[in-house]
Amino acid sequence: MSDEPEAPEALVSLRQSIDNIDAALVYMLAERFKCTRLIGELKAASGLPAADPSREAVQISRLRRLAGAANLDAVFAEKFLKFIIEEVIRHHNEVAADSHNRAGQ
Amino acid sequence: MSDEPEAPEALVSLRQSIDNIDAALVYMLAERFKCTRLIGELKAASGLPAADPSREAVQISRLRRLAGAANLDAVFAEKFLKFIIEEVIRHHNEVAADSHNRAGQ
Repeated sequence: MSDEPEAPEALVSLRQSIDNIDAALVYMLAERFKCTRLIGELKAASGLPAADPSREAVQISRLRRLAGAANLDAVFAEKFLKFIIEEVIRHHNEVAADSHNRAGQ
Repeated sequence: MSDEPEAPEALVSLRQSIDNIDAALVYMLAERFKCTRLIGELKAASGLPAADPSREAVQISRLRRLAGAANLDAVFAEKFLKFIIEEVIRHHNEVAADSHNRAGQ
């Protein structure tokens, strides 16, 4: 019972760290999507497909390696990258559709 | 045709940026899961439930605000947080099950 009141304080401090990390993640993701948006425009302009399975395979194996070094679950790291790539492909397809629509006008 | 050869170079450069950002994301996520793992242990020790809907609601509204500032799609930011929280709850439940198993020994 004596050390019970410390739990909320420790929780608050850990939650503050999580909030800081989440802010960093949001800004990192925004920067990542800036890059992929530019890639989408390049791909649409060159008529390249939105998805690129060979690039994805390289990314996944690299990320699994990095996850090992960071002590992050490799299965989760792969799931995370696929989650992001799904969103990227959605953007790419939007860009391609826009550019197709503009070409048709 | 004259500016076609520039596309691969621009692509390579953008992909390098993405690889750098992904490494940062992996290390950030590893740090985030370190925090949530500690929270999971605190929660299990205090018999608190793994999920905390009121905390999640605050996190989601904060993240949507941050996403706006970062020019990141707010719907995606929310989806992203839910994706991470799902994994966190999976960890918390594992920790709770472990501590329950130890208590039963």
